[in-house]
Amino acid sequence: MSGSGAYEVLIDGQPMRCVDAVDRGFQYGDGTFTTITIREGVPLFWPLHLARLERDCRQLLIPFPGVEHLEPDVRTLCAAHPDGVLKIQITRGIGGRGYRLPEPQRVTRVLSIHPPPDYPSELREIGIEVRLCENRLGINPRLAGIKHMNRLEQILARAEWTDDAIREGIMLDTEGYVVEGTMSNLFLIKNGTLYTPKIDRCGVAGVMRSITIETALQHGMAVAESRITLEELFAADEVFLTNCVIETWPVRRFGHRTYGVGPITQEIDRWLRTKAENEQVAAFNG
Amino acid sequence: MSGSGAYEVLIDGQPMRCVDAVDRGFQYGDGTFTTITIREGVPLFWPLHLARLERDCRQLLIPFPGVEHLEPDVRTLCAAHPDGVLKIQITRGIGGRGYRLPEPQRVTRVLSIHPPPDYPSELREIGIEVRLCENRLGINPRLAGIKHMNRLEQILARAEWTDDAIREGIMLDTEGYVVEGTMSNLFLIKNGTLYTPKIDRCGVAGVMRSITIETALQHGMAVAESRITLEELFAADEVFLTNCVIETWPVRRFGHRTYGVGPITQEIDRWLRTKAENEQVAAFNG
Repeated sequence: MSGSGAYEVLIDGQPMRCVDAVDRGFQYGDGTFTTITIREGVPLFWPLHLARLERDCRQLLIPFPGVEHLEPDVRTLCAAHPDGVLKIQITRGIGGRGYRLPEPQRVTRVLSIHPPPDYPSELREIGIEVRLCENRLGINPRLAGIKHMNRLEQILARAEWTDDAIREGIMLDTEGYVVEGTMSNLFLIKNGTLYTPKIDRCGVAGVMRSITIETALQHGMAVAESRITLEELFAADEVFLTNCVIETWPVRRFGHRTYGVGPITQEIDRWLRTKAENEQVAAFNG
Repeated sequence: MSGSGAYEVLIDGQPMRCVDAVDRGFQYGDGTFTTITIREGVPLFWPLHLARLERDCRQLLIPFPGVEHLEPDVRTLCAAHPDGVLKIQITRGIGGRGYRLPEPQRVTRVLSIHPPPDYPSELREIGIEVRLCENRLGINPRLAGIKHMNRLEQILARAEWTDDAIREGIMLDTEGYVVEGTMSNLFLIKNGTLYTPKIDRCGVAGVMRSITIETALQHGMAVAESRITLEELFAADEVFLTNCVIETWPVRRFGHRTYGVGPITQEIDRWLRTKAENEQVAAFNG
């Protein structure tokens, strides 16, 4: 995703890869982003990604560049590269004395489209193996939920292993509660109820996380956002991970605990596949 | 400092301002930096900045580019702009799948030299007024001390005020202990002892902070690094702030508490001025 293998990059609508070294995105990670699957030219769940960018910009006091600037860029890239992963970054741009905000702020928008990831497609059926990360997430409610460009905690966690058989690492907060994967949100099923960690103190409120919660509720499942301990995670009946690129990955194994791929996870996965397909149909009819 | 007013930028030794949009410094704030005063062509406390860059790179698992690459860049910029502020950034460069580290890592080094800040010079004598920030520092011992490029906490804290009469904001950690200013380290004096917050859970271990501690010890002062409460800060006899650009700013006033500019602060300030002057003499003789 951050590799040199980007198909194409647009900066403020222009095809180029050159960010000014004094852009605050590069100076301080002063920006936010979202990652979107492009399938047959359609940016899946585009209105939700747009809403998340707008919400995260508001939380970071960054002026939202507006759909009228973003949509033409997205259309250009999706037409040229109909299957891939689109990353949209919005930074606070250039200026300001030190950390102080520029006045006025002129944001930078960077859209980069990348090849689809090379994950084996069967992972979605057979599930994955995950590990527990030693690196933890610091607690800061002011930044919780935001997909901001300060990602060193995730990078150091992801650096803990190189074994390709392990697809993801589970991160705890500094108090020891389960929060998420390094690049995914976490769900567990216990006695028929769907649980996911509250994202009110740290972690990313992923778009696929909110789609999963909404879908489960629409199908009549009980859903709870709560503090989850490691003991509760081990005691779960089923566990799965979500993000907008993988959609769902069942967790087959976590350390010494084997869950297999559970029936409720499979059912939720079917609902989410249908939802994504409907996105494409709606786009073609719209 | 991050403004468009950089005199000049060198990227990997070349005069340019263009960072690749997929550089991990821009994608994730995946890098570290240091900020150095250049006075009459001399980078003050250069060996300490070099040591901090090397230590912070090691903590972040970034290969240190080596003094043989950094020093020629520094010499070039100091010769062209003998009075200013030099910022050195080292990022993990391009590559890797998502958060995963590239293999091998090829770091990017960005040196930018900026005009000296426009702070009134008398602040060092008359002291400054500071405020308490509502934004707090998340606790993460793994990242504590490192001057990394994830700086949203400081930016949101600095966004809390625009009144130019207030020069700095004091930040607490999420447990309520005093840590530092948004861009400076904090010291207080109580009954003749110099106290400064421990930087073992959050905060930046500034170069001027370590110079101040060392200098005070050399002059026979008692020094303690400890957890400091807001009550202890209010009860202090004297308070001052440090960084490598301001060196020292006495805190004249903090909210409703007036400290004035205390005699021990003034003495420490004299020691630090002498130390900086000796740096210049040493450079000219070396």
